[in-house]
Amino acid sequence: MPGIETSGGGVSVLADGVPLLSYAGVHDARRRLEGRVLRTPVLRNEELDRLAGARLWLKAENLQRGGAFKMRGALLAVERLVAAGSPGVVAQSTGNHAIAVALAAREHGLPAVLVLPRDAAPTKVASIRRAGAEVRQAGTMLAERVAVVEELRATRGLDVIDPYQNPDVVAGQGTATAELLTQVASAGGRLDAVVLPVGGGSAVAGACLATRGHGIEVVGAEPAAVPALTEALRAGRPVTVAARPTIADGLRPDRIGQLPFDLAHEAVAEVMTVEEEDIAEAMRLTLCHARLLVEPAAATALAAALRVATRRRAQDVGVLLSGGNVEMSLVSSLLADEDRRR
Amino acid sequence: MPGIETSGGGVSVLADGVPLLSYAGVHDARRRLEGRVLRTPVLRNEELDRLAGARLWLKAENLQRGGAFKMRGALLAVERLVAAGSPGVVAQSTGNHAIAVALAAREHGLPAVLVLPRDAAPTKVASIRRAGAEVRQAGTMLAERVAVVEELRATRGLDVIDPYQNPDVVAGQGTATAELLTQVASAGGRLDAVVLPVGGGSAVAGACLATRGHGIEVVGAEPAAVPALTEALRAGRPVTVAARPTIADGLRPDRIGQLPFDLAHEAVAEVMTVEEEDIAEAMRLTLCHARLLVEPAAATALAAALRVATRRRAQDVGVLLSGGNVEMSLVSSLLADEDRRR
Repeated sequence: MPGIETSGGGVSVLADGVPLLSYAGVHDARRRLEGRVLRTPVLRNEELDRLAGARLWLKAENLQRGGAFKMRGALLAVERLVAAGSPGVVAQSTGNHAIAVALAAREHGLPAVLVLPRDAAPTKVASIRRAGAEVRQAGTMLAERVAVVEELRATRGLDVIDPYQNPDVVAGQGTATAELLTQVASAGGRLDAVVLPVGGGSAVAGACLATRGHGIEVVGAEPAAVPALTEALRAGRPVTVAARPTIADGLRPDRIGQLPFDLAHEAVAEVMTVEEEDIAEAMRLTLCHARLLVEPAAATALAAALRVATRRRAQDVGVLLSGGNVEMSLVSSLLADEDRRR
Repeated sequence: MPGIETSGGGVSVLADGVPLLSYAGVHDARRRLEGRVLRTPVLRNEELDRLAGARLWLKAENLQRGGAFKMRGALLAVERLVAAGSPGVVAQSTGNHAIAVALAAREHGLPAVLVLPRDAAPTKVASIRRAGAEVRQAGTMLAERVAVVEELRATRGLDVIDPYQNPDVVAGQGTATAELLTQVASAGGRLDAVVLPVGGGSAVAGACLATRGHGIEVVGAEPAAVPALTEALRAGRPVTVAARPTIADGLRPDRIGQLPFDLAHEAVAEVMTVEEEDIAEAMRLTLCHARLLVEPAAATALAAALRVATRRRAQDVGVLLSGGNVEMSLVSSLLADEDRRR
């Protein structure tokens, strides 16, 4: 796979010769994670099916430890660094990868510093501090956070856990999709497509690996306000996009990672962009009908899934409800908006 | 078991001689329901555990078909009546039993009339109509609904599915607790207590059967505004209580059923009453931390569970999150209250 770098403290081949960034690598990651992450439920909902005109299989990773699927990759990456004698870790993130790294580091008694944007969701910052990790906040753009991470690596000798480039992280995130496929099969179903939210790209990258050979279309969903993968695919390489504000704080990275880009470029069927009002509406629908609180990033995937049946002739659509770390004030204002409209 | 009547169109002994209202009867019910109801997840949450000072095992029946555990009993009762050639069914309910009967009747193409209180939750009434059933609304007290049911039975020859007295219903509701016990055991745990909301009493009655021989304390939770089981246990028989208003619309029955009373009288360790503000707070906590939307009835059980560890020295506490059929306007106003308090 040309262009794939294994930066960020990772390795690319496991001890038994299995490449980590492969279908087998994702299944190896799944075995390593057994009993350490929740096997989150896959939910069906008649009302959402009706709205989608398809059978939706909702992978409820909002119920995952740390409130998001990011726990999967972080546990694997931290575990490998601990085994190698790491003195501590540093990671940048819009929030969920940081929470996950903080929790994983705490499990091993490892110091952790997390670099978040200045305007990160306050509950995410609070969760990281509760896990006993150090928080740094820097700017609003990816490049500003990366600069702080680099400084901490150089001055304090911390190991970097990159949220989009680290192979353990990408393989780990892929286990959410792999698990979804198993659960759908156990229920007698078979997916035509799977929809994942796109921030830095680790979810979609992991899904590209996990669906190999299954004949399942991988569909990315990103806010129209931050079309990082759409623009990258158009340009033929990752580009920094001019991001507009979005309620999907988890999908704010203004540039797709090189590794996710390479995998997506090879295997993604389509990237759909979602308007802000549709993200908000999907959050309300998930709450009202599926009785799940999801964060706007997850709602972005659901909003795309509601349109995917007609666009791709999909009958059975998997949706990664990626996380549930959301400000109650946002939920409150979304519901109040709805009350006013009625 | 003295005092147990098998009214409401039910039978008390299965074809193979197993009494329906027994531990074996609940397990037989579970077998009959296999693949027809969701095996809802049992969720753990660190933050709620911290608040409770115990390990809480949350049985998420808010994610059940029809939005509540009532689907279990209704399917079994309707199925038996269909097999006996029933011309149609009638049931009274504050909402969730009615939704469940309507959906179960639709599966069999059976006419159904549901009798709800005048002030029933509008989304519950809408769900019943969407399932193609007829809705009657009558008064606010149990006796008023029962009178309408009796009239419909007499004039239209409909079979009654009583929500608290029908043995299929009670055994069916017990399968939620039985499943919870299995799921906790699979996860390597063992419950000391299980907390269930008390309306007409079918949840607690089912739990009394499902926990027999397990050494697990059964704890009921009811709104302080409608202490139907508390007062019945004090009086030594079901009594109609002077109900005050409560947001827990599912727990409004102002009199416990005779059958649930008999089982509860024999086996319940404690009934806890919960104030309105604690029900509201538990709803917010479940949304915020467990990322689940539950209705106030389920929140009543959670609120009691948060106090049960200290009261009963319980380390591992199961909680029946009984349903998720809630008005969005209520959620909105609860969150707005919280915003104002901050």
